[in-house]
Amino acid sequence: MPTFADRLFSRIRTTDSRICLGIDPRPEGHPSTHPERFNGDPAQVARAVVYYFQAIIQATQGVVACYKLQSAFFEALGIPGLIALAQLTADVRARGIPVILDAKRGDIGVSAEAYARSYLAGGVFASDALTINPYLGADSLEPFVTQAVRADRGLFVLVKTSNPGGGDVQDVKLEGGAQLFEHVADLVTRLAGPHRGGSGYAPVGAVVGATHPDALKALRERLPYSVLLVPGYGAQGGGAEDVAAAFDEEGLGAVVSSSRALTYVTQGADFAERAREAAVEMNGAISAALG
Amino acid sequence: MPTFADRLFSRIRTTDSRICLGIDPRPEGHPSTHPERFNGDPAQVARAVVYYFQAIIQATQGVVACYKLQSAFFEALGIPGLIALAQLTADVRARGIPVILDAKRGDIGVSAEAYARSYLAGGVFASDALTINPYLGADSLEPFVTQAVRADRGLFVLVKTSNPGGGDVQDVKLEGGAQLFEHVADLVTRLAGPHRGGSGYAPVGAVVGATHPDALKALRERLPYSVLLVPGYGAQGGGAEDVAAAFDEEGLGAVVSSSRALTYVTQGADFAERAREAAVEMNGAISAALG
Repeated sequence: MPTFADRLFSRIRTTDSRICLGIDPRPEGHPSTHPERFNGDPAQVARAVVYYFQAIIQATQGVVACYKLQSAFFEALGIPGLIALAQLTADVRARGIPVILDAKRGDIGVSAEAYARSYLAGGVFASDALTINPYLGADSLEPFVTQAVRADRGLFVLVKTSNPGGGDVQDVKLEGGAQLFEHVADLVTRLAGPHRGGSGYAPVGAVVGATHPDALKALRERLPYSVLLVPGYGAQGGGAEDVAAAFDEEGLGAVVSSSRALTYVTQGADFAERAREAAVEMNGAISAALG
Repeated sequence: MPTFADRLFSRIRTTDSRICLGIDPRPEGHPSTHPERFNGDPAQVARAVVYYFQAIIQATQGVVACYKLQSAFFEALGIPGLIALAQLTADVRARGIPVILDAKRGDIGVSAEAYARSYLAGGVFASDALTINPYLGADSLEPFVTQAVRADRGLFVLVKTSNPGGGDVQDVKLEGGAQLFEHVADLVTRLAGPHRGGSGYAPVGAVVGATHPDALKALRERLPYSVLLVPGYGAQGGGAEDVAAAFDEEGLGAVVSSSRALTYVTQGADFAERAREAAVEMNGAISAALG
């Protein structure tokens, strides 16, 4: 089986798109999934969410590189929400398109192994890649790396997030002058180095927000073996010129994620077609910035 | 409704126990839940796990202050595992005993709100408290604090974890001489301060491992408004003398968690009674150390 990076780059080439479409179901966001329509019945709401995003996947599959599912919104819908997560994940994977589960997991020892098994092996939640949190240190990340290498899946370690408050911890100045996120980037590079594949990239990627253009540029160099997952485009403030710095010389090595700005454009019935148009427009801007 | 700290301290007084019994289902750990017994059928395995821990809860409810469910092991059992999580959580809460969900969640904005709603409001996963990860900064923690205050639930922010590699990030020396975990502790205290209740404690607690006795002692002072959740007792190396430092002058303000060392003592049918004995012994050692 090709590595996660190989599969992702193959998709980027085929679609000529660097967009990771984010699936963040907010049932209140569209009349067709609104809880009031179903008297709040969670099973019916979750079912409507599946249909809503299946329509978006069908309309956008040719114009995005991959999909990212935000676990928080599925968990908030309870057991029916988790069934919806499993269904949509399987639907995307059945099309041969990579799915990133954005669950930001992190734990130690056998608990980390259990999370890695849940999301990077078989089972109903099997995804192509998982976002993980580095606060618990290298030995908390290693079980994820082991499983990702074993099963040809990917990881994206949180390094520099797109939210304004991310700096409270990530930007702290260390003895010697570096900032914490640079220290974490070096940790990611140490974990990634031994597992570089033919593409030059390892299964250990990183999350770096589009809202910090200088850091993004510096981190592209500091994370030479890591595919970058870049959130924060558009509404949060990152522009096409900013995210261009995330890509390598071949225009690979990163994907830019966007969720609401693509999937909740309209209250109308043409939401899927509008998602396609928004993805094409966003990708066009990024392609133009890449030159 | 009394605050989470009030409910927890009331339990500590009633049971004279400072133990948080950890429910970390590992089906391979006992013949009655072993997957081979059920030809690997996840629904039957999850059902057996529920019976196993219901027996342990029944036997230990008088000798532990609270229970902590480790989400990773339930997620690893797929949808049936999450149903088991919901069942066991509801079973413990129906007895009036606090449940901490150890899920180490962390995200930004509306995603953080969705997690807070999932675990600190109504719904099938409603718990009394949740563990959360601080790497994404104060604005990622605030939605959890808001929800915890609103619904009288608790939080435990990861500050200093018990694993050997935790220091890779948490112990990094900052400009000015402090270590990162001290900086995070100060962030927790800033978030907790405005929400102190009658007990002097706020809903914003902290996770501090028993494996760092000096740090534990210092953090008890540095986190004056935070209930401490102390893992790492026993197998991981923390002793009764070490964890005594987590408690305030009244012997409140903390609970010490233990999982496998209590719940997987034997392969025999007397596992629940043996869990009770192990919890009584562990609590006796802590009581003796508190003097």
